[in-house]
This record gives sequence, C-alpha cells and structure tokens, in this order.
Amino acid sequence: MSDLERELDSRRDAHREALFDLLRIPSVSADSAYRAGIDRAADWLVDRFRGMGLTVDRIATSTHPIVYAESAPVAGAPTVLIYGHYDVQPPDPLDLWQSPPFEPTVRDGKVYARGSTDDKGQLLTHVLSAETWLATEGPLPIQLKFLIEGEEECGSEGLGELLDGKLSILGKPAMEGLKCDVAVISDTCQFAPGQPAITYGLKGIAYFQVDLVGPSIDLHSGSFGGAVTNPANTLARLLASLVGEDGRIRIPGFYDDVRPLTDDERRAYASLGFDENAFRAGIGVDGVTGEVGYTTLERKWARPTCDINGLWSGYQGEGAKTVLPSKAGAKFSFRLVPDQDPPKIAAALRQYLEAQLPPGIRMKLTEMHHAPAVIVPLDSPYVAAAADAIEQGFGRRPVFIREGGSIPVVTSFARKLGVDTLLLGWGQNDDAAHSPNEKFALEDFYRGIRASAALWRRLAADRA
Amino acid sequence: MSDLERELDSRRDAHREALFDLLRIPSVSADSAYRAGIDRAADWLVDRFRGMGLTVDRIATSTHPIVYAESAPVAGAPTVLIYGHYDVQPPDPLDLWQSPPFEPTVRDGKVYARGSTDDKGQLLTHVLSAETWLATEGPLPIQLKFLIEGEEECGSEGLGELLDGKLSILGKPAMEGLKCDVAVISDTCQFAPGQPAITYGLKGIAYFQVDLVGPSIDLHSGSFGGAVTNPANTLARLLASLVGEDGRIRIPGFYDDVRPLTDDERRAYASLGFDENAFRAGIGVDGVTGEVGYTTLERKWARPTCDINGLWSGYQGEGAKTVLPSKAGAKFSFRLVPDQDPPKIAAALRQYLEAQLPPGIRMKLTEMHHAPAVIVPLDSPYVAAAADAIEQGFGRRPVFIREGGSIPVVTSFARKLGVDTLLLGWGQNDDAAHSPNEKFALEDFYRGIRASAALWRRLAADRA
Repeated sequence: MSDLERELDSRRDAHREALFDLLRIPSVSADSAYRAGIDRAADWLVDRFRGMGLTVDRIATSTHPIVYAESAPVAGAPTVLIYGHYDVQPPDPLDLWQSPPFEPTVRDGKVYARGSTDDKGQLLTHVLSAETWLATEGPLPIQLKFLIEGEEECGSEGLGELLDGKLSILGKPAMEGLKCDVAVISDTCQFAPGQPAITYGLKGIAYFQVDLVGPSIDLHSGSFGGAVTNPANTLARLLASLVGEDGRIRIPGFYDDVRPLTDDERRAYASLGFDENAFRAGIGVDGVTGEVGYTTLERKWARPTCDINGLWSGYQGEGAKTVLPSKAGAKFSFRLVPDQDPPKIAAALRQYLEAQLPPGIRMKLTEMHHAPAVIVPLDSPYVAAAADAIEQGFGRRPVFIREGGSIPVVTSFARKLGVDTLLLGWGQNDDAAHSPNEKFALEDFYRGIRASAALWRRLAADRA
Repeated sequence: MSDLERELDSRRDAHREALFDLLRIPSVSADSAYRAGIDRAADWLVDRFRGMGLTVDRIATSTHPIVYAESAPVAGAPTVLIYGHYDVQPPDPLDLWQSPPFEPTVRDGKVYARGSTDDKGQLLTHVLSAETWLATEGPLPIQLKFLIEGEEECGSEGLGELLDGKLSILGKPAMEGLKCDVAVISDTCQFAPGQPAITYGLKGIAYFQVDLVGPSIDLHSGSFGGAVTNPANTLARLLASLVGEDGRIRIPGFYDDVRPLTDDERRAYASLGFDENAFRAGIGVDGVTGEVGYTTLERKWARPTCDINGLWSGYQGEGAKTVLPSKAGAKFSFRLVPDQDPPKIAAALRQYLEAQLPPGIRMKLTEMHHAPAVIVPLDSPYVAAAADAIEQGFGRRPVFIREGGSIPVVTSFARKLGVDTLLLGWGQNDDAAHSPNEKFALEDFYRGIRASAALWRRLAADRA
C-alpha cells in the first residue's frame, strides 16, 4: 500500500463529512426557490478547489454559475477534463422520503440524500482524490481540469453558452480553456453491486412531434363517422406503421448505417449474466418484446429503437363522448446507434409518413432535438488505463457496457473538443437517482476515490 | 282550404308568440343554476295542455319533471305518442351570440334563440296543431299522448326511470300509460332548405374504452426503450388493426349481420344530389375517406364505421420528454347498422384485441354503452301517412333519409313499447342546434304545424 492509499484510508471520515456538507446544500436547479442553494453549492466547490491550490473560475452564465478549476499543466503528460454537476433533481414527493432529502442519513452502509449518487457523491470522488494527492504527494502527475455545472437537471443552458464559445474561462476563449486529451464523467452506474463497469457507448436520439389536423372542428362521430377521415384513426395507423411485427423499424433505409454488434460484444454481453427475470420484476411486467434476433440486453444497449413518448386526441375525460376529433398528435423518438445520422433519419421519416397521409388530413412533423450515438473504441489507451485504475479501486476488473440513454455533454465533448469521454460510473441501478430515497453506497464512494487517484497515476505512467 | 287550415293561417302571430314565450324561459338542463327555468318551462307546458282540455300529469322524477298530456281515446283510431324535450343546451359561449340566447329575435325570417330548433320550436308544432284543432274542429280524431322530458341534453335520467317502469302516469303503470300505435318525434332536420324528409333509419352504437398497462411506472425511454413493450406503441398497433386500408373493419365476423343497402336505397340516395364539395368545405377538409365501394352519403347513413373518440398516453405537454409510458388508453366506438348485434360485436372485438396482445401488456376493455340500429320499414302505413301530411304542410313530398347518430329514446320505444318512431324533422342542418346563434326558420315552424295537423287527419282517415 502506497502512502497515498494509506492517506485515502485515513481520510475516510473526512471525505464522508465533505460529502455530507455538500449534500446538505439544497441545490435544486429546476426551481428558482432554491436559487440560494445553487449559489451556496457553487461557492462550496470554489472554496474547496481554492483550498487545494487550484486556479479557479466561477463562471457566470445567463442562468446558473459553472465552477471551473485546473491544476498546473504537466509537460508531456495528458490533460484530463472532469465533468460533473452540483445541481440536483427536485426532492418531491417529500412524503415518500424515509429521511429528509437534504439531511444525509446513513442506513445499511448507504448515504440517503438527494444528489448522493447524482451527482455530488460521484463527482466528489475526483475532487477528493486530487485533494488527497496534492496533500500527500505534491503536484498532480497530470493536469486536471474540473468543469462542474449547476443545471444538468434542467437543460444545461449555461453550459451550452460556454461550449458555444460565448463565455471565457480564466480570461481565455472557452475552447482553449477546455483543451484536453480525454474527458472523465462519473455520473452513471456499475453493472451490478460488486461489478464495476466502464460505459463505452451511448445511443443517439431523434425526437419528433407529429400533429395531425382533420376537420376544422370536432364533429359528431355519429353524423360524420365513416364519411370523414378521422385524424386519431390516421395517427394510430401512422404510428403503427413505424415498427413491424418483428420489432424492426419499417422506415426505408433506417438500418442502412447501423454498425452491427461485433461477435466479441455479443459474447461479452452474454457472459454478463443479465438477470432477465429480475429485470422484468423490477419494472412490473411478465414479459418483454422487441426486435427479433437480439437479446434484451443487446436491444437495450446497442440496437436502434422507436418509442411513442406521448399521445393525445379528442376526449380524455370520464364517460363516453361521441366526438370525431379535429386533431390528434404524438411525441415519439428513435434511439440511434453508431453510425446512424439523425438528419438522414429525419428525412426518411418525413418521406415515409407523408407517403401514407390520406386525403383530408394535414400533418405537421416537428424535429424536437437530435444527437448521434457515441462510442469509445475499446482499444483506446485511456480505456485501458481506466480499467486498470478501477481494478485497483474496486478490487475487480470492470466489464464494458453500453447505455440506451444519451448524455448530451459527451456528444459536445466529441464534437467540440475532439475527445472521447470515459464514463466511469460508481452508482448502482437501484440508487433511485431521480426518485425519493436517492442513495449512494459509502463503500462505492471510497472505492471511487481510490480508483480516481489510481487513474491519475496510471495516466501519468503512460507518459513514461 | 279547410276551416282548420284557415284557422292555422290566422293564428300565425299567436303561434309565434307562444314560441317566443317558451324560448324566453332559460331551461338549461345541464346546469343546476338554471333549475328555476326548468320548472317554469314544465309549468308553461302544463298550463298550455290544461288550456287545451287535455288530461295532464306533471311527473316528478329524481331529476327534472316530465310533462305528460293526453287527449281522449278514439275507438278504432290509432294512438300517437309525441315525444319532445323542453330543456335546452347551455348557451355558452355567450359572446358569440348576435342576439341574447333567451331573447328570441327574428332576422331574415328565422328566429334566433337557444332551443328554437332543438327542440322547443319543433315540439310546439304538434302542441299548437292539436290546440288549433281542438278550438276549431272539436275533439281530436285520434288519441294524442304527449311525453315531454326536461333533460334530453343531459342524460334523460328521469325518462329512464319512467321507461323502466319505476314511475307511473296518471296513476297507471308507465307502460300502460304510454301504450300507443306509433311514436312521432320532431327533433331532426330536413334534407335541405325546401326539401323535407323523413328519417327512417338511425345507426346503433357500441362504445368502448381500452386501457393498457405496461411497466408499473413511467420509464426512461433511453435506458429501457427497445427492451420493454411500450403500451403506447401497442395501443397504436391495436387501434390501427381495427380498420383496414380499404376502410373496412377487420374484426372477424363484424359484417356478418350487416343488412345491405337495397338497390332502391342506393338509387334514392344518389338522386338526392348530395353536394360533396359543400360537405367538405363545411368541415374544412380537402378530401374524405372511408369504406371503399360506397359513396360518402352511403357511408354516413348506412354503413358501419369505427372512430377513435379519444387517445391518451405519456407526456402531452410542451417540449420533449423521454418517457416510456406506463399506460396508454383510448375511447373508440362503432356505429352499427341493422341487423348488427352490439353484444356480439363486443365479444368479437374482445377476442380480436386479446389475440393481438403482446407479452408485457395488460388490457382492460370497458364496454361503455351500446344500442342497436333502428329502421322503420318504408312500406309502413304510418310512413305513408306522414309522407302525405308533410306534402300537405310543406308543399313538397319528403325524401327518405337516414342518420348516422343514435337517438336512444327511439330504441327504447321500439324495445319497450314495440312501436316504430316517425322522425319528422322540421329543422335544417345549419340550425346550429348546440352552438351559438341557434335558429329555426319561422316558415318551417308554420309548415310543421300544418303538417302535424294534416297527420292527425290522415291517420284518422286510415281508420275508414
């Protein structure tokens, strides 16, 4: 055991207290009533970084402040950008919490509090590993740049301004300030308790709203039914046409650019022992369906999908109203995989729907937002370094997993900084990130700090 | 011109004043704030019938009173039950009325007021024809029974109690009191201005709600999409499966009992000169669709249909929410034609939907309400009498039309009293029955009174 590791062990209580301090600050970003909490959380981080001797910039945005801090550059060694967020989800519904959301409480080795896993607990592992290093070993062996935003849970508007180059960092253009070799984010989950993971792929997204208009007003479904094209009937037909019986998306060309799962990937996923029964039980269903020819885990992580997110038309109240609706609409989205191109998908979708539109119906198709999928090559030296570091911190080699969701900042880092992001998640799937009784295992917190410190050392060693 | 016809002509002003008196009473049934108006309208009718020397019963129900009145039986002559309603729709939105809804105002030969066409103006034609007859010719040549309810616009709960035999009429069981040979209702429309009509068919209805439940809570559509059966996707698929590309309903057996349109009917409809361009323009669409092989009018009047009346699932607000909904639901209804049986349709539907249900989705199918179609044989002597009477009153022979809507009381009369109903509509399709600026042409009012008197005479003549 090195001096650093001994010091990390001896600081466990202090680290837990730091975590509790930050968790006590109610930095809910979506509700302006908590604005003071946002400022206090940003100030807390500024003070901590200053205490570590880093160069700090509290960047004002048109919304919530971004906290930036950097250590000194190290010639010949890589620069790592660590992203995290100090804001948290609203704590409602409060009555479902077993202990108050902003009074961190330990039960069964886990700290219960809003933000414990998402993302205060996870982001602090990197702050505290660096702090301990600086106190024990002297200067960091690589340059660290911390970029901690305050509105990840409500749209990241300020971060957008920064990444669009509208704000500066330490007096320099933002893109120059953020220059780095690789990014690290700890805001995801391990594969399972005791099985750490590196998330090497995220799906992209293309989200749409379709609005259909038929007759100019709602009509009596008796007097007009059968004689007039019903926009709700048409909507059902259009939406049903998106996915076939085999679970495959029927838009011509949709699969043209899909990068197939490799045999290695399929073997690796199969070896993970994904518990499908537990998965079903966890969401309360007795069966699942999806694209034929792929396992549930493959569909979840690595196959494109189409889901209706919202539907509306006509009468939604109690009882029976005999209305032939004037309007019908839906929100739906595709999750994309490499190398699908969202604008190409959007164009194919539009053509496909327009070709099916019957007389008497006008359609408005709105592209809400989109992002391509991202994937980190498994043969990247940074992935190898992260895997070694996790093995040191957690005592077990990580598995390589993907995630069906999107993390927009990862796409931004790839596009604007040209770097891959290492998604090193210390949380668990049942941490209730956006729900009452959010938690984070203290042991994973300490392991994460160890893995983080190991990562700085391992990346520095690559220099040699 | 007979004495009666001369007297009807000379009473035009008095009849208009009677209409205006009744229209001034705000008898809105759906809003308890208007309860005094309901009672005043019932009292007005009671007084009028008493003044005519009829035997009257003001029947209290658990909701609004029913006004019943009968003339003396005439041996060997038929008894006619005249149904109408003294309640009216709410007048909102008030600011769209050109003149106040309860201050009848004549513009361009039409009286504008709430209830003018639906149904005070139309029902009064029968009251005033009988009143004039009694004043001019002595006793009526047939027995008339008036059944005027006060909540046709809000569920007819009291009428239901009466027809279920829970209330009595003039001390006798209701079914005995309502005994008759034929029923007459004037609460529909002519085919077009200057072209009177007899509505000889009404569609039936079978109305359903389907509720689908997938995962026990809304899920993240990124993390879970493709791995879980989405109830909104399933709903779109189930609803789309109801109707084929050819506009035909795909439930096995659905058309088994459909009575085909006769060649005579199709010829008659084709000869009516239905203006499809005007129809499209009136509802603001550039085209219509429906079952292939049938004209718009045939589909509207005489072919079964399926319309979605309401739809809901997931996120309906602004912007994009990446939710995989836990629930999805819809209201939808079939309009039925003779001789389709609603319970048989319901059973076939349930079987059809259940067979398509994928793993991971639970379905609840609720039968909301249903009624079979009704049709009056065109060779009925009552239809012949009514056609002659309308020719006398309107100066033109009526055409025979059908209607896509249902009128539940017609079904009740057929089932419980075993009689056909003559639907003798004096209104026009653009009378705005449930809308601002409801109107009724005074000339149609006077013609209706003449036709009504002619009907009593013609039905009495059948006796000879």
